[in-house]
Amino acid sequence: MNLPRKLRMGMVGGGRGAFIGAVHRMAARLDGEIELVAGCFSADPAKSRASGADLHLDPARVYGTYEEMVARESALPADQRIDFVSIVTRNNTHFPVAKAFLEAGFHVVCDKPLCFSLAEGRKLREVVRRTGRVFALTHNYTGYPMVKEAREWVRTGRLGKLLKVVVEYPQGWLSTRLEATGQKQAAWRSDPKKSGAAGAMGDIGTHAENLAEYITGLKIHELAADLTAFVDGRPLDDDGNVLLRFEGGAKGVREAPRAAAPR
Amino acid sequence: MNLPRKLRMGMVGGGRGAFIGAVHRMAARLDGEIELVAGCFSADPAKSRASGADLHLDPARVYGTYEEMVARESALPADQRIDFVSIVTRNNTHFPVAKAFLEAGFHVVCDKPLCFSLAEGRKLREVVRRTGRVFALTHNYTGYPMVKEAREWVRTGRLGKLLKVVVEYPQGWLSTRLEATGQKQAAWRSDPKKSGAAGAMGDIGTHAENLAEYITGLKIHELAADLTAFVDGRPLDDDGNVLLRFEGGAKGVREAPRAAAPR
Amino acid sequence: MNLPRKLRMGMVGGGRGAFIGAVHRMAARLDGEIELVAGCFSADPAKSRASGADLHLDPARVYGTYEEMVARESALPADQRIDFVSIVTRNNTHFPVAKAFLEAGFHVVCDKPLCFSLAEGRKLREVVRRTGRVFALTHNYTGYPMVKEAREWVRTGRLGKLLKVVVEYPQGWLSTRLEATGQKQAAWRSDPKKSGAAGAMGDIGTHAENLAEYITGLKIHELAADLTAFVDGRPLDDDGNVLLRFEGGAKGVREAPRAAAPR
Amino acid sequence: MNLPRKLRMGMVGGGRGAFIGAVHRMAARLDGEIELVAGCFSADPAKSRASGADLHLDPARVYGTYEEMVARESALPADQRIDFVSIVTRNNTHFPVAKAFLEAGFHVVCDKPLCFSLAEGRKLREVVRRTGRVFALTHNYTGYPMVKEAREWVRTGRLGKLLKVVVEYPQGWLSTRLEATGQKQAAWRSDPKKSGAAGAMGDIGTHAENLAEYITGLKIHELAADLTAFVDGRPLDDDGNVLLRFEGGAKGVREAPRAAAPR
Repeated sequence: MNLPRKLRMGMVGGGRGAFIGAVHRMAARLDGEIELVAGCFSADPAKSRASGADLHLDPARVYGTYEEMVARESALPADQRIDFVSIVTRNNTHFPVAKAFLEAGFHVVCDKPLCFSLAEGRKLREVVRRTGRVFALTHNYTGYPMVKEAREWVRTGRLGKLLKVVVEYPQGWLSTRLEATGQKQAAWRSDPKKSGAAGAMGDIGTHAENLAEYITGLKIHELAADLTAFVDGRPLDDDGNVLLRFEGGAKGVREAPRAAAPR
Repeated sequence: MNLPRKLRMGMVGGGRGAFIGAVHRMAARLDGEIELVAGCFSADPAKSRASGADLHLDPARVYGTYEEMVARESALPADQRIDFVSIVTRNNTHFPVAKAFLEAGFHVVCDKPLCFSLAEGRKLREVVRRTGRVFALTHNYTGYPMVKEAREWVRTGRLGKLLKVVVEYPQGWLSTRLEATGQKQAAWRSDPKKSGAAGAMGDIGTHAENLAEYITGLKIHELAADLTAFVDGRPLDDDGNVLLRFEGGAKGVREAPRAAAPR
Repeated sequence: MNLPRKLRMGMVGGGRGAFIGAVHRMAARLDGEIELVAGCFSADPAKSRASGADLHLDPARVYGTYEEMVARESALPADQRIDFVSIVTRNNTHFPVAKAFLEAGFHVVCDKPLCFSLAEGRKLREVVRRTGRVFALTHNYTGYPMVKEAREWVRTGRLGKLLKVVVEYPQGWLSTRLEATGQKQAAWRSDPKKSGAAGAMGDIGTHAENLAEYITGLKIHELAADLTAFVDGRPLDDDGNVLLRFEGGAKGVREAPRAAAPR
Repeated sequence: MNLPRKLRMGMVGGGRGAFIGAVHRMAARLDGEIELVAGCFSADPAKSRASGADLHLDPARVYGTYEEMVARESALPADQRIDFVSIVTRNNTHFPVAKAFLEAGFHVVCDKPLCFSLAEGRKLREVVRRTGRVFALTHNYTGYPMVKEAREWVRTGRLGKLLKVVVEYPQGWLSTRLEATGQKQAAWRSDPKKSGAAGAMGDIGTHAENLAEYITGLKIHELAADLTAFVDGRPLDDDGNVLLRFEGGAKGVREAPRAAAPR
């Protein structure tokens, strides 16, 4: 893809110590058509500034809050301000940040999961419709060549009519109570106030659900789930098994164990 | 294993055109400690005789009915009569045949599944207890070296405490309505009067259940199953997905698709 | 295969502590058409008798030397004497044993490798031609279903014209100097006087060569080999890499490491 | 890695229709520390300009010849001129281009293979020593996580002392005479005047050699190769099998078939 000019990208979240922001930046860089020019990389302004310096950004475009970023970017001339923002914060802030940028006229790329609750998701749908901006939700695995190939096999009928769908996403890093050590990634993912109502099923089960629907082109319309927290004292599930029924009659199972073997 | 003499084995079922009888005979021959000496290989006496001749048996010990076999073998001197019988008939005759041999004092090896119904199974348990004979139910996969090795890994703690058990038994030969062509193996397995209440789940799902419990040493105590007949007009399930809960807290899923891809 | 009667088999070698004799016996038992009735299972007569008893043989047909076995079996009535003998001794006795049975009119099944030297192999060819008896050399891997399937893929053109053949037979059990512990299997295989001029390449490389030619239907006509004894003090190779050229132009490599990783 | 400023990169080769240039650009972009600012993307000046426009470069820094690029970049102020050049041309021009940039004081990254001949390689070594510039030769596979992991397993002794090294690089795209259709990548790779004395062995066998030495940390010191051109009329090898001997006594085989199965 060759665009007439590089697109200007901003980012909210993704500072030092974060995980998925760096993945978004690598993905944005790969084809040379996007340039990161602004960001609010942390709720801590000093950390945000340090992160912006790591990224060789102009300090004038590294912000302390996302509200400041919306205001200041909106005030820039059209040929300088960002074209879109990438939101890579924790689940509980996706909605307010997305809403602010959409209503200021910016397009939004947001990491999964969509929002913190079903109610937030419905409100976000309304904002997107009203503003007419692009809202893209990223599930990074759909970018892998093998996933594209699998989807093509289904689409072109190479696998025939699909009757059965089995999808697994095994992890092992939370097989012990890592959150009790203060490890940042484990801590917020095990905290219902930051992660939401679902643990492993919300964090990685969403990838399994996304891949199942993306590759097969089928929609899940019924399910029965057995969620478990194997690690003592963990308030959110670290394992889940799900029976799936798809529109059109296919059946399936989904598994998302996070407390599997350590490696 | 070296025995002081070869054991004398009889067989009910397993004549020309049958499937599992030949597997029992191969298993019995492998270590050279068992000799097949008698049998009733078919409900059709002519076919039973022809099958006995194929196996180089003395025609005097090839019988037309299992009742005749019980009577005539019981009348032979102790150093000639069979030590045990292998039952490899269709599901709906396991119980009466086993009962007859047990009550005549013979040990019994019977292919899975146990019986045609839960009620029959309970009656059989009573007969076994009363007669004090050995009753062995064969699930042939437990004999594979890799299965033994897996069980040993669990038993010796190499895999740690088991939290999650996933077991699959995919087949594809019934992905079309093969039973409508008169194919013998497909016909009785798709007929509730001969196969019992379960299709794929009873026929191959039992193997998956057996392997899960055999390898892990855990017992299933709760389950939720989603059974499907994907092939139009088939009265028994040809696919099943099951959520499993084991004693001690492990969770799992079991799959037994029989209408998977043809190969 | 149904024969009019069971074939009567004898065995030379394969007593207590031996390896390949038991494999020959299992293979012979599998289809129920062959019965082991006689044998000389060891150069030690007491061990031969004990091995015969393990196998439930008539003591009158368990012999102390192969010469005695040839003489006594030849003297039995035609409807009692063995039809063929299976030779499962060490490499250095294949030739004299085979010659004795062939010249007495018995058919011979002999385990690989053919003989101890090229000169012996040529003499054996002459004996076989003169006596008109069947001489079968066993390489047991050709019996595996996957090998048969691979050969069928080649034969029916599913793989196209073959240009390149890569064949590997990795083992690890001789990665230490096991022969120094007196382990019987290791000791004779590492002794040029019993095993012959080649170590790993003669013992397992022959299987690789056999499979390459059996599956592809091509004949090797030129080769260059790099043989190594990695274990200090071992007089025979425990590793080999070979460049292969086949009739018709295909090229290939063969590997037979015996000092690979222990497991 | 965070540098105080982004490095400025130039490129020679890699214009429209080229293959490896785009890989170098993606690799350079991934961590955000390198910026492509200049290039001579083709021996055809119009194509070079069009390629530069695709890449959003300043037209003033897109050159028609590499000699012009060396002269004009050298004349720029130190805080604007490129820091290094990436050479992604065909094998026969690696040497003159590298020499020109090195002698003008630029660092060089050059794609494999090093040069067109051993003589060129030796001259290049002399230029690098004299100029004191960095000369990096890229074999892209060393960047894969699995390769790094394998090397770490060797380095930390997890695999023990290495005795045997087997390395394969199978391809199939030249299994027909693709070069006869005018396909650009096939044409120059099959032409000894552009590719050099070796075909598959030089183009992909070099990767196999690089990975073998990179992962094991061992150096090849002797080899015997069997090179073949399976496709009629091809002047360079499209298959090769090699026996390897490493310093320290390890042995190995290397394979680089390019005329393997089409997929």
